[in-house]
Amino acid sequence: MASKENPEGMNTENGKAAIKTAEEIFEEFKEHSVAEFFTKNKQMLGFSGKVRSLTTVVHEYVTNSLDACEEAGILPEISVKITAVGEEHYLVKISDNGPGIPSENIGRALGMMLSGTKFHRYMQQRGQQGIGATGCTMFAQLTSGKPIHVRSSTGNGKIYECNVSVNIKTNAPHVSDMQEYEGDFRGLEVMAEFADVKYDRSEYSPLEYLKRTAIANPHAEIMFIDPEGRKVRFPRVSEMLPERPKEVQPHPLGLESHTLYELMRASPARKVSSFLTTELARVTPSKVDELKAVLPQFDFDMNPRDVTWEDARRLVAAFKKVKWVAPSAEGLRPIGNEQIEISLRSLLSPEYLSVRSRPPKVYKGGVPFIVETAIAYGGKAGARTEAGAVGGEIMRFSNRSPLLFDAGGCAITKAVKSIEWKRYGVGEFDTTPITVFVNIISAFVPYTGAGKQSVAAEPEVVDEIKFAVMDVARDLQRYLAGKVREETRATKRKAIIRYIELLSEHLPLLANTGKKEELQQKLTFLVFEKFKADEAAEDQKEKKTRVLMEEEGGEGEGESGKIEFDEEDM
Amino acid sequence: MASKENPEGMNTENGKAAIKTAEEIFEEFKEHSVAEFFTKNKQMLGFSGKVRSLTTVVHEYVTNSLDACEEAGILPEISVKITAVGEEHYLVKISDNGPGIPSENIGRALGMMLSGTKFHRYMQQRGQQGIGATGCTMFAQLTSGKPIHVRSSTGNGKIYECNVSVNIKTNAPHVSDMQEYEGDFRGLEVMAEFADVKYDRSEYSPLEYLKRTAIANPHAEIMFIDPEGRKVRFPRVSEMLPERPKEVQPHPLGLESHTLYELMRASPARKVSSFLTTELARVTPSKVDELKAVLPQFDFDMNPRDVTWEDARRLVAAFKKVKWVAPSAEGLRPIGNEQIEISLRSLLSPEYLSVRSRPPKVYKGGVPFIVETAIAYGGKAGARTEAGAVGGEIMRFSNRSPLLFDAGGCAITKAVKSIEWKRYGVGEFDTTPITVFVNIISAFVPYTGAGKQSVAAEPEVVDEIKFAVMDVARDLQRYLAGKVREETRATKRKAIIRYIELLSEHLPLLANTGKKEELQQKLTFLVFEKFKADEAAEDQKEKKTRVLMEEEGGEGEGESGKIEFDEEDM
Repeated sequence: MASKENPEGMNTENGKAAIKTAEEIFEEFKEHSVAEFFTKNKQMLGFSGKVRSLTTVVHEYVTNSLDACEEAGILPEISVKITAVGEEHYLVKISDNGPGIPSENIGRALGMMLSGTKFHRYMQQRGQQGIGATGCTMFAQLTSGKPIHVRSSTGNGKIYECNVSVNIKTNAPHVSDMQEYEGDFRGLEVMAEFADVKYDRSEYSPLEYLKRTAIANPHAEIMFIDPEGRKVRFPRVSEMLPERPKEVQPHPLGLESHTLYELMRASPARKVSSFLTTELARVTPSKVDELKAVLPQFDFDMNPRDVTWEDARRLVAAFKKVKWVAPSAEGLRPIGNEQIEISLRSLLSPEYLSVRSRPPKVYKGGVPFIVETAIAYGGKAGARTEAGAVGGEIMRFSNRSPLLFDAGGCAITKAVKSIEWKRYGVGEFDTTPITVFVNIISAFVPYTGAGKQSVAAEPEVVDEIKFAVMDVARDLQRYLAGKVREETRATKRKAIIRYIELLSEHLPLLANTGKKEELQQKLTFLVFEKFKADEAAEDQKEKKTRVLMEEEGGEGEGESGKIEFDEEDM
Repeated sequence: MASKENPEGMNTENGKAAIKTAEEIFEEFKEHSVAEFFTKNKQMLGFSGKVRSLTTVVHEYVTNSLDACEEAGILPEISVKITAVGEEHYLVKISDNGPGIPSENIGRALGMMLSGTKFHRYMQQRGQQGIGATGCTMFAQLTSGKPIHVRSSTGNGKIYECNVSVNIKTNAPHVSDMQEYEGDFRGLEVMAEFADVKYDRSEYSPLEYLKRTAIANPHAEIMFIDPEGRKVRFPRVSEMLPERPKEVQPHPLGLESHTLYELMRASPARKVSSFLTTELARVTPSKVDELKAVLPQFDFDMNPRDVTWEDARRLVAAFKKVKWVAPSAEGLRPIGNEQIEISLRSLLSPEYLSVRSRPPKVYKGGVPFIVETAIAYGGKAGARTEAGAVGGEIMRFSNRSPLLFDAGGCAITKAVKSIEWKRYGVGEFDTTPITVFVNIISAFVPYTGAGKQSVAAEPEVVDEIKFAVMDVARDLQRYLAGKVREETRATKRKAIIRYIELLSEHLPLLANTGKKEELQQKLTFLVFEKFKADEAAEDQKEKKTRVLMEEEGGEGEGESGKIEFDEEDM
């Protein structure tokens, strides 16, 4: 293939590739639907690789079921059945006891991208974008040529069944064969066929996904039937329905000029001052006075709909000059230490387990989030290679959803790997039998992609995860140090006791005096009194080191500057 | 925060979060534009982190300029200027000498997502999706509140200037202040303001991005002026305009049922048989006969527009039973060994450099791609930490565009890290001064996200990158082994020469006979004749090992099964 030298900058027709003018280039100008975009870029939704694709399907439906149950206050019962219908071709049937979808919304909820109930909320949810379920519909169409089949009832005695597909050129839903009948059912059932996918039992499989979902959702009852007909039940281990996450108002420090501008344009408030106190979090009349002092020229009596973008920018700049109470994390619902402990103990039977949750933090100035961590050591903790080697394992979750894929780019992986594990007495992370559990809870988890399998490395998020994992790593370190100390002490004790026994036996003979038993008792008492004092001093020293380390490890809170955390939220 | 036990599955209003019925939940049902989606998920476009965001802006515009110049057959001259206009607030001005955008297309090209000229093509391009440039417009709006300013001319004497913004709610472009005047200019110039971004000179900076762009595009002339006014010129080092990549027809093995079905529905052909021979690659009349033998029931005279999805599926299954000539990689344009060598030598001044390109391969059955690799050792090769330590560096490229971000999840990183570097005599990858260069060329690079910074780990792609890097790693191994052998031999020679000198001096004295010079000459001859034979045997042995290793490293070609590569393409 010869290239032509072309100092004029204008190539000639070479019979292979025509050189084009701007007008010719733009003759091919076209517009595309978001469904078309994701059809060409299925991997961005998690449809890459045969095993991963099938797990993605399970992930999207289960996520939606859990969210819907949570919103409707229902203890979830979810059943997943995967049946082989051909080579690399499976039927997936997922049903829940959730609130169901009203018949008129079925099409758009499952057959139209970027539509849904979750997109615009300041609220903790597993799903976010109105993409996942429709992505599955699209993937079913693309690989099996068939629409998905849906059965839904809101529990009002009427059951709807229909087929749903996506018009890929227009992103419009297509509902067909709608049937309505009476019956006693509430919930949603989806049956869909997928080809070019593969079921296995690897660490990336639907089974592993469901196992981890059960860990983070002890209130859910999950039943799974695999293609070989094996039933696996993940029983509900807690009858406690998690409180529904609460929609919260945006915090002044979490707002970008653009968002503030849009909020003001849509506000029914008559004055900027009343907009601020009624539609943003933590803005009191006295805070408005502080803002007035920062922006003396600004008219806080102006109608918020008359505000310009530049005004919004000035307000956002002014927000940064005032001291605010941190955004409320009241709307966030962590799993809770107790539940995490129950789950991990039953799964890993670890020799040692430490679970911690830390006070809420914020990223990007005002988006609250909570990190929950645990570390399990020994037992079934750690990852096993096929060759049987054991290494460190990271179990990643966000808003109680397991993250199985895209570990490399994830903030959780980065944070855990950045820790100097040797400092914590566990050697190399990759060769130690530990499982590190991390769950990030936020109304807005910054995912790196539409497949929601990896958390973007926002600096505050990475730091907080790191500090949180260091907390449990220190717990483990103390346990391991204690274990070593105990072993050393036990060895010492044994040696001394043997010595005392010998001494007690021989001394009376040598001295021709006293009784062996009496001497042994006295010697033992003498020696172990001294021993106890030594041990106490040792423990005291360890305690001091620990305090020093914790100070050093740092909370990193001082950095967030203008934020005070509200006692209530802690 | 107390949670309520709720065995009934129906929670009560608790004053904090209302429990909702399906009807209430779906009252909030909304539809959103793709612009709105990416506004909420800016990180998916690469707008995460202050430094990365600014580099993403430069990346998107430069990518478009290079693509446009390539398509129009113009040797590119690109100038990038970044000026600080406030704290974390910059003006970016990028201009090129490309074909320009016709005035009527400016709005949609720069202010509407998912529109463009590239989306639907089977052709190698840097950009793909019609998202990048509009993403920048949106990011400018969101952070600075200002539209972008555009100057464009197709070189017909008329210059257009206007402002462009995106209506985020509707994804419609908004063009304002359009001016038309006469002038002698051809190309595109964009000026846009971005706040909440940061300029630095790190490995993730615009400067590093442009440096790597220059490496992979030696035919481009790039000028950069940084915020402190420093000029950096990356001069054109090759006057050779790369041949324009060619649009290719889809290969039977690269088609999914859905795509085939869509192609047939849109085909002007009258019969399936003529559709196959005219619109797909590598389908000859005799291949149609082979297909007929595989599918005796199928009517190849049918109108392609009457074909059902199931028919398409059967055809795709039949394609897999016929032996095909591999898809043409003729449309692909690698950088070429010579150009890569010039670029890397001038950048790294390495002690050793090996550059290789391998024959085209396919992934997903029928998507052709080419991997180009190089390995540089010593000199300025390798990554340097701030502390001065040197480690292995991976320079990732796809279609000649540098990939600076999301390294963790990238197929290139995975492939390089999966290699047992110790086998190649270079110790640990992370502590060796090597730079591994990888460029993937394809009409469809499977990116993991819309930010196009990471290649999805399709198994065939990972394998091919691994084999390609192993090729250059073996070159390096031979060089290093040779170096060690040479050093050992030189030491041996020196020792022997010293010995001969001594011997030649003392022997005549002891024996009282002969001349020192004569003896020395004879001894030297005798010893080095033997030496040469030894060295030759050693070299022979090394050569045998190499062949064995290459056989073992494998081409992996046997696996693709039904594919024969066409001689022309090699």
